[in-house]
Amino acid sequence: MTLDQALRRPGGLFVTFEGVEGAGKTTRSAALAGSLRSIGFEVVHTREPGGPPLAEAIRRLLLDPSLEIPTAAELMLYLASRASNVEHIVRPALAAGGVVICERFNDATEAYQAAGRGLDREFVESACSFATGGLEPDLTVLLDLDPAEGMARLDSRPGGPDRIEREDLAFHARVREEYLSLARRHRRFRVLDASLPGCEIDGIVLGLVEEALRVKEST
Amino acid sequence: MTLDQALRRPGGLFVTFEGVEGAGKTTRSAALAGSLRSIGFEVVHTREPGGPPLAEAIRRLLLDPSLEIPTAAELMLYLASRASNVEHIVRPALAAGGVVICERFNDATEAYQAAGRGLDREFVESACSFATGGLEPDLTVLLDLDPAEGMARLDSRPGGPDRIEREDLAFHARVREEYLSLARRHRRFRVLDASLPGCEIDGIVLGLVEEALRVKEST
Repeated sequence: MTLDQALRRPGGLFVTFEGVEGAGKTTRSAALAGSLRSIGFEVVHTREPGGPPLAEAIRRLLLDPSLEIPTAAELMLYLASRASNVEHIVRPALAAGGVVICERFNDATEAYQAAGRGLDREFVESACSFATGGLEPDLTVLLDLDPAEGMARLDSRPGGPDRIEREDLAFHARVREEYLSLARRHRRFRVLDASLPGCEIDGIVLGLVEEALRVKEST
Repeated sequence: MTLDQALRRPGGLFVTFEGVEGAGKTTRSAALAGSLRSIGFEVVHTREPGGPPLAEAIRRLLLDPSLEIPTAAELMLYLASRASNVEHIVRPALAAGGVVICERFNDATEAYQAAGRGLDREFVESACSFATGGLEPDLTVLLDLDPAEGMARLDSRPGGPDRIEREDLAFHARVREEYLSLARRHRRFRVLDASLPGCEIDGIVLGLVEEALRVKEST
């Protein structure tokens, strides 16, 4: 089945982009959203933390360098934002048969809060599942990159680094390793080399979405 | 041992006030704080949600009637606020040997979010424990009141009801029952009839604090 055919048999598809800072999640997910829209798909493109008014308010707290945020509170804020995003944006869009593209989801919490910050992994997993009512992506694109290269990309951006980006390289190395470990454990993951040219990645991602639509159609 | 003697042997004491809306938690806990200060105790009086800047910012979100807050997100926001309050206010004050008086703590989350909203009780308990690092009050004063009477008291206050106060009586009845059930299960609870005259309650509470200090001293 081609994308064009999939379009005539609408069904929600949930795609997430994951990866360390600077891996290109925003650019690549925006490119995918644009491609899908251009061939007629209803696409909702959202990011975490963020989305509905509550989630955006929480995002401002999380990225505010003047606030002291204990690691347990940080976890809870990410999950509150996600719960709001899932209930008010992701689930309604999927129910309407659209494609939802989300930058970061539960995998990010396992990578950053459990592996990165050292929070109890079992609790983090159960809390993620609770916050999202057990919602899982159909396809997770992991843009894999050496964290040092990601940091170098960020340094060339205007504006200073945020609270998460300021963590040291060892933190970001743990995040990357956890992402790769998650990719080995979950069949929904596809790992791409984020140092490839952007247009090449975009082509691969579009193919992965086509494959995911085909799988979804056949189940 | 009298309060005066306890004062000479400092050790942190953590006292929480619980009860349905309108039961008098703010007034009675302020009276206790005043009495203890007048006899020389270092007292920190805090409320939930609230405390440090992050917790106060979260409080504003929780009480904003214009925001749609899914129940899972509500739970996470309360716990983020509590984690911040525990780390930045409660634990440092206890470590310094002071008395910490807190309006609402984990029991409120079990009463409002698990019993009131119907969230999974086991998850709520584990999340409360995670957010507070297992911190438990030495003494919990439950100001028990018929929710209908509590609502009538609120109606006579200036300003309209907030998001929680606007819930129906059946919700508040479940909250009260859960509080009474918690009181049967935890020895740290003391249940007081909140319809008694305030000065009478204040005298009883001071006696309970004296008893709690004595127990703490002997262990």
